[in-house]
Amino acid sequence: MALMRSWVESANSPETDFPLNNLPYGVFEAGGHARMGVAIGDRILDVGAVGHGLDPALFAEPAWNAVMAAGPEVWAALRARLTELLSDPAHRAAVELHLVAQDSARMLMPFRVSEYTDFYASRHHAQNVGTMFRGPENALPPNWLSIPIGYNGRASSVVVSGTPVTRPWGQLKGPEDTLPRFGSCARFDLELELGAIVGQPSEGMVSVAEADRMIFGYVLLNDWSARDIQAWEYLPLGPFQAKATATSISPWIVTAAALEPFRTPTPKRERPLLPYLREPGPMLYDIDLEVALAPEGGTETVIACTNYREMYYSAAQQLCHHTTSGCPMRVGDLLGSGTISGAAPDSRGSLLELSWGGKTPVVLASGEERRFLEDGDTLTLRGVARGEDYRIGFGACSGQVRPAVDLPDWAAG
Amino acid sequence: MALMRSWVESANSPETDFPLNNLPYGVFEAGGHARMGVAIGDRILDVGAVGHGLDPALFAEPAWNAVMAAGPEVWAALRARLTELLSDPAHRAAVELHLVAQDSARMLMPFRVSEYTDFYASRHHAQNVGTMFRGPENALPPNWLSIPIGYNGRASSVVVSGTPVTRPWGQLKGPEDTLPRFGSCARFDLELELGAIVGQPSEGMVSVAEADRMIFGYVLLNDWSARDIQAWEYLPLGPFQAKATATSISPWIVTAAALEPFRTPTPKRERPLLPYLREPGPMLYDIDLEVALAPEGGTETVIACTNYREMYYSAAQQLCHHTTSGCPMRVGDLLGSGTISGAAPDSRGSLLELSWGGKTPVVLASGEERRFLEDGDTLTLRGVARGEDYRIGFGACSGQVRPAVDLPDWAAG
Repeated sequence: MALMRSWVESANSPETDFPLNNLPYGVFEAGGHARMGVAIGDRILDVGAVGHGLDPALFAEPAWNAVMAAGPEVWAALRARLTELLSDPAHRAAVELHLVAQDSARMLMPFRVSEYTDFYASRHHAQNVGTMFRGPENALPPNWLSIPIGYNGRASSVVVSGTPVTRPWGQLKGPEDTLPRFGSCARFDLELELGAIVGQPSEGMVSVAEADRMIFGYVLLNDWSARDIQAWEYLPLGPFQAKATATSISPWIVTAAALEPFRTPTPKRERPLLPYLREPGPMLYDIDLEVALAPEGGTETVIACTNYREMYYSAAQQLCHHTTSGCPMRVGDLLGSGTISGAAPDSRGSLLELSWGGKTPVVLASGEERRFLEDGDTLTLRGVARGEDYRIGFGACSGQVRPAVDLPDWAAG
Repeated sequence: MALMRSWVESANSPETDFPLNNLPYGVFEAGGHARMGVAIGDRILDVGAVGHGLDPALFAEPAWNAVMAAGPEVWAALRARLTELLSDPAHRAAVELHLVAQDSARMLMPFRVSEYTDFYASRHHAQNVGTMFRGPENALPPNWLSIPIGYNGRASSVVVSGTPVTRPWGQLKGPEDTLPRFGSCARFDLELELGAIVGQPSEGMVSVAEADRMIFGYVLLNDWSARDIQAWEYLPLGPFQAKATATSISPWIVTAAALEPFRTPTPKRERPLLPYLREPGPMLYDIDLEVALAPEGGTETVIACTNYREMYYSAAQQLCHHTTSGCPMRVGDLLGSGTISGAAPDSRGSLLELSWGGKTPVVLASGEERRFLEDGDTLTLRGVARGEDYRIGFGACSGQVRPAVDLPDWAAG
């Protein structure tokens, strides 16, 4: 598929993340109020103000939940109408009035997160983490090749790109300690993920094909992780406070429709899947992903490059599995793919893997080293699907690490 | 504390769950529309219709979230005003018009659940389950005496008492099987718990004392559990689909204020707690709890009796721990205590424990045996705090097990 041209000139550049082919959905604040917007080149279309066939009822609340709830026919009609309005020069005069410069806008959460689930579904990530903790022979948990393993996360902790993240406190116990202590996290980490947004509700089991149709779009997702808190807390009921400090998402929802030309299959199965998890077609997308780290006041270094096709399970398979028990799914549910790592050492989606548990530091362009995150570090995820002469970009998903707060007296004891 | 008398005569009976001392909050449907109500004797006060100093803005949506959000001063003022209206005969004529018979009402969810967290915090339950799985020496996980262990559950699966619960499908793998299969749960179970409802939001860490003040009230909670699904899925990231079929709650929120006379301390610590978890006063409540099982068409047998004071950690400690990482808490968050078991064999809050992993069946009054739940079984939880001449009851938390749905073709393969 080739570039679709817009009368917004900046949308026709091969470098823009936001050509007419993309049309991602966000919420922005400019001039003091929050509104729903569509990115086009270096502009944002104030979509609730346009009229011209765009139903204002869909844009009443500054969140994309109402559009999602309206269903796939409305999704398709909205995309078609936006494409028309932004390509046909006849609409230019009327529509141009409602373009806002991205530079002058502050991005807000694009939707209300109903519930947040995080998965563990990249083969290399599971192999790496398992090897560090249990040795190479026992790296994969016995269920890993059969189940898209997931756990419920905390929706209240999901924040939009740009929100600073404060280093957490928690219970820590080193291998030499007899008792735990309450301390600030010393092994604070990122996880490079893609988030899938559930756009339609379900009751009862849904198939992989139905699950795929329920997904409205995708965001980049950084699941900030406190490795030392997790090590002490996670047995037997899984990660809890280690994952509850913050999860950052990129501000633009890239729709499944925009990603359609980039579909690619999941890898060859190492163990046959149960019938309910089999896919009717390619369910991943070819999306290049990268992680960059900038120390406070310094320049950034790209520390990892990978691709969403490294997933062993697709979001559709994860969503299908999520419903097997009869669990109701709701508009606005967010599914984290799990950390995405490739085979190469520089394609690992976490510092835990990149520094191999802290043993081999990552060297930044400045010469500084990182085993885990330092206060002041800014992490930025980027993602792009590459067409012949255009790119579908996600925009940046950034967050700076702030020092831990002072310990209150009652906690210091 | 003694019975407070109401002009609603049925509220003065020593047998009622709902004397004037209680005043629990629910949502009911009668005559076709959903409304907020307060239980008094065998009646419900249609609280949004009364006026007389009760602010109708608090009762606009049929859910108690707005009252919770209004804060502790409003909670106290509302309780004081309701007490006045229902005790002073001068108000009788005006207020009586707004009483509805409980018999004629259908109870609905009393509040919108924001997020749901479930804990693992009763000493005997942890000991029993650990002994079955790891032997008596390794029964308690190493972190258990230091952390109120919790995991995030699924808010969308919380239902009100009376809602039938459908036996789930899921991945199962017996110890002899080489590969998992997709089957309906054969070890479907209940968990007797108390649910604490977070009535005030927080950002950042809160102390146990602050956490205690954030809790609006309590409900009975049955965390339906698929033991065979859990056994295969839960390592390494905890329970997921095994806990996502349904969690039933009783329809009346019994306020912390009503339970105040029944405060009782947590048990002696077996290992000193870290300072942040130490309690400034008694944080549990003396609440008798029971589980009854009725086979389809049969009479019920009480299969377990225990008490909320069996908890090792209070809801306030759990909520405090929940915030250590900076996790924001929101109005309407629901915290399950974890299964509550006592020392005696008949005080265990799950069939897993009562039948000791299916080895020793529970014998019902009819002579029938139960290792796990059968289709058609109705489970009912009850709870009551006993004053000198009155009781603070929770009403029943019931649910009937329905057979698994037919497996769709795409899942049968």
